Amino acid sequence: MNSSMALHTDKYQINMMYAHWKQGTHNQNTVFEAFFRKMPFGNGYAVFAGLERIVEYMEKLHFSDEDIDYLREQEEQYDEGFLEELRRFQFSGQMDAVKEGTLVFANEPLIRVEGRVFETQLLETAILNFMNFQTLIATKASRIKQVAKDDILMEFGTRRAQEADAALWGARAAYIAGFHATSNMLAGRRFGIPTKGTHAHAWVQSFASELDAFERFAEVLPDQVTLLVDTYDTLHSGIPNAITVAHELKSKGKRLSAIRLDSGDLAYLSIEARKMLDEAGLHDVQIVASNDLDENTIADLKMQGAKVTSWGVGTQLITASDQPSLGGVYKLVEREIEGRMEPTIKISANPEKVTYPGKKDVYRIIHPKKKRAIADYISLSSEDDVEHKRRIKLFDPLHPYMHKYVDHYLAERLLEPIYRAGELVYDRPALEEIRNYHQEQLSMFWPEYLRKRNPEPYHVDYSTKAWELKRDLIEEHVEQKSKWRAMWQDSDDSHES
Amino acid sequence: MNSSMALHTDKYQINMMYAHWKQGTHNQNTVFEAFFRKMPFGNGYAVFAGLERIVEYMEKLHFSDEDIDYLREQEEQYDEGFLEELRRFQFSGQMDAVKEGTLVFANEPLIRVEGRVFETQLLETAILNFMNFQTLIATKASRIKQVAKDDILMEFGTRRAQEADAALWGARAAYIAGFHATSNMLAGRRFGIPTKGTHAHAWVQSFASELDAFERFAEVLPDQVTLLVDTYDTLHSGIPNAITVAHELKSKGKRLSAIRLDSGDLAYLSIEARKMLDEAGLHDVQIVASNDLDENTIADLKMQGAKVTSWGVGTQLITASDQPSLGGVYKLVEREIEGRMEPTIKISANPEKVTYPGKKDVYRIIHPKKKRAIADYISLSSEDDVEHKRRIKLFDPLHPYMHKYVDHYLAERLLEPIYRAGELVYDRPALEEIRNYHQEQLSMFWPEYLRKRNPEPYHVDYSTKAWELKRDLIEEHVEQKSKWRAMWQDSDDSHES
Repeated sequence: MNSSMALHTDKYQINMMYAHWKQGTHNQNTVFEAFFRKMPFGNGYAVFAGLERIVEYMEKLHFSDEDIDYLREQEEQYDEGFLEELRRFQFSGQMDAVKEGTLVFANEPLIRVEGRVFETQLLETAILNFMNFQTLIATKASRIKQVAKDDILMEFGTRRAQEADAALWGARAAYIAGFHATSNMLAGRRFGIPTKGTHAHAWVQSFASELDAFERFAEVLPDQVTLLVDTYDTLHSGIPNAITVAHELKSKGKRLSAIRLDSGDLAYLSIEARKMLDEAGLHDVQIVASNDLDENTIADLKMQGAKVTSWGVGTQLITASDQPSLGGVYKLVEREIEGRMEPTIKISANPEKVTYPGKKDVYRIIHPKKKRAIADYISLSSEDDVEHKRRIKLFDPLHPYMHKYVDHYLAERLLEPIYRAGELVYDRPALEEIRNYHQEQLSMFWPEYLRKRNPEPYHVDYSTKAWELKRDLIEEHVEQKSKWRAMWQDSDDSHES
Repeated sequence: MNSSMALHTDKYQINMMYAHWKQGTHNQNTVFEAFFRKMPFGNGYAVFAGLERIVEYMEKLHFSDEDIDYLREQEEQYDEGFLEELRRFQFSGQMDAVKEGTLVFANEPLIRVEGRVFETQLLETAILNFMNFQTLIATKASRIKQVAKDDILMEFGTRRAQEADAALWGARAAYIAGFHATSNMLAGRRFGIPTKGTHAHAWVQSFASELDAFERFAEVLPDQVTLLVDTYDTLHSGIPNAITVAHELKSKGKRLSAIRLDSGDLAYLSIEARKMLDEAGLHDVQIVASNDLDENTIADLKMQGAKVTSWGVGTQLITASDQPSLGGVYKLVEREIEGRMEPTIKISANPEKVTYPGKKDVYRIIHPKKKRAIADYISLSSEDDVEHKRRIKLFDPLHPYMHKYVDHYLAERLLEPIYRAGELVYDRPALEEIRNYHQEQLSMFWPEYLRKRNPEPYHVDYSTKAWELKRDLIEEHVEQKSKWRAMWQDSDDSHES
């Protein structure tokens, strides 16, 4: 990352900062919440990721001289005083976020930022960019992990990733979700993720024969040798040559670790390969498969009895090919008016886009005996029912008449303090810790929520107060709207809701 | 970009470099060619991009002490002598590439790298990562440009991009293909791309009323004011308030530049908005639309008479949502054997994956009078028919009996020298120049190749010698394969071709 990424933002953020500064409203206190509205891939859960990157960004956030010069030059409307204010910019607000690796769901606040609008506005673009991508990839990786179970999973996507940062941070997101290794060396160096790699077809093509190429490779890297067997003819050349090398390694007290299949029908070839290896007494030689794999292909191959124990997953994972973006948004929920914080709502003709006003907290409500998650409960931060273990009412916001009361429960507050008054107060966990935490998270959920296809929807419920606040603000708006329409004497507005 | 991105590569590249070094074959001369096999989005052409980034990468390419320490620590098998060789690493080979902005097609070499295998192997991952993403986005952007014609196009995708680099380099790729501006400030600063931005819904929510919010914004940034009119009610509040502000601006000798629609039916709303603006005498106020747009939605909206003259395109462009990866590959085509360069082939059970052996050049064959491209002609670099303007035979590699002779033609050599003996010999063009060049390129192609859907396939033909070389090497392989199979006495191999 560059020393500062202050300009990794949209121009309208800078314009709004300027407009607030000129109007003297730049110190107005605000609360923004980041969330997404729809589960990616039709999955039953998402895996939150991106916080480490956000903290790195926040820690280095400042406007460099080069940034300031650029702004001065490209927008003559900006006052010098504003540029001076940017030069002094530092985050002085609060941030709360869900821990990386947490199972999260649509419509719950994942990151909450509170502070001067001059600061909270700038952060929007970068926070969403990091959260959207990394949560997307961690979720995709978790789906693959559900299918691969105890097999080894390797992230191989760098060449098809959407530029360098995606390869790097995507490898990390995959590791959080249970992948075992990456081919990306920078991710290995930066994050300590185990790296894996064998050789390419070009290695085999560089020598007079495949056997020669295999022998030379095994000679040089005798520990953890994996041979790619499909350069010429998998069953008649590749595997037989690999078996020859395996015997040679054995005679030196070493062993062939695995063969890799990268083309052809992976079910058929892996079954044949397994037979050939077993017949040669090489029961401990593993079979690695790669070639445009995703959770669906892996599931189908396993159903057909493929003898693969290690999967290299590239393009489909690193680009989240079947849904390459998570539509996370960052919405203003409270703002200061005459010294008091007031909830605010964003109305939309699309009902699912109408925001929940008010600063909120998210609690995971857990069955006290079974220790499994029952629902997530979102209440206004001013409420304290959950903190005091009082009875709560869970109801479906789409169908409020469907409800139940819960008296005995455990609760976990999902939003943790990350920044207080501009100071980092979060003890950043090691990557292994995040990865383990993600596995624990999975064990807290009943399997029906984790199913790859048609999972049971997990309940994300709002407190009665949070729900009523939204209802009241919508009602206010509807009244206002009738006045506008009456004012415009518009009798033909059938196109708009 | 970090000072060095040497580890922005796959582990197997480092392993192969090590194996070559140990075997003493690391100075073996090699030629690799990068190309893709399938046109993205079913488009008739692709727009090559990524070269600037590749040159930046090459110019800074070295292994830092931190890189070396990491490699030593994580792979005990590596010799210290190898690490020393890495420390001294610098590119000393040749690179040729197509110019950014060029229209390119499947199966033609876009980047050719020649040099010691120790160097050529390392570059593969980074070259593909940069070329694949940027070419993909430039192509997507060019499709959108074809549809939008002379309308203004703005890239608005940063928050949904796959991490920071994708936002930055994606903005540049879009600009090459004819976009007019980006919202990404870093892309503005780094590349000089014009930036655009208005305000968000949060701005409107920050004030007591929409009119108040509009007036304050216009007061502060009176030049180029665009007002977002859909926070509460587009037709009954947003546009009337924008009209009020427009009149106020007029009275001060300024003008409202545009209104922006970001939700609802953009065809209906833009037509109504146009009427309202025109009735208020505001014929010069433009209408900007955004909200999950792509080339198909824009085409449909225009067909329905939408009165939009400026489009903000985000998610669908920056992630190339309908096909988020270009499957570019980097294949060994020649290697040194006993001091001589020999062509090499990669065989595959998939016929389209069998490579074209030999070091090649690509010529664009141009009609001498009409100045339009007839076909691309790929010949071995050892051939000189095109250089000497001799008759060439164009034939379809899939249907060799379909052929024609061309006697009179103009020809452009597409691969230009970028590096010679490790020295950058390419005069990097300014971004505006690349953007203009792309427009010129388009004008060289008949419209049937540029159609959004079901374009006529443009001809990419191989010289007879290039074609015969491939045929001969396949034949050699088939003979070898029969020997292997006979050796294995395998009578039941119906599963393999």
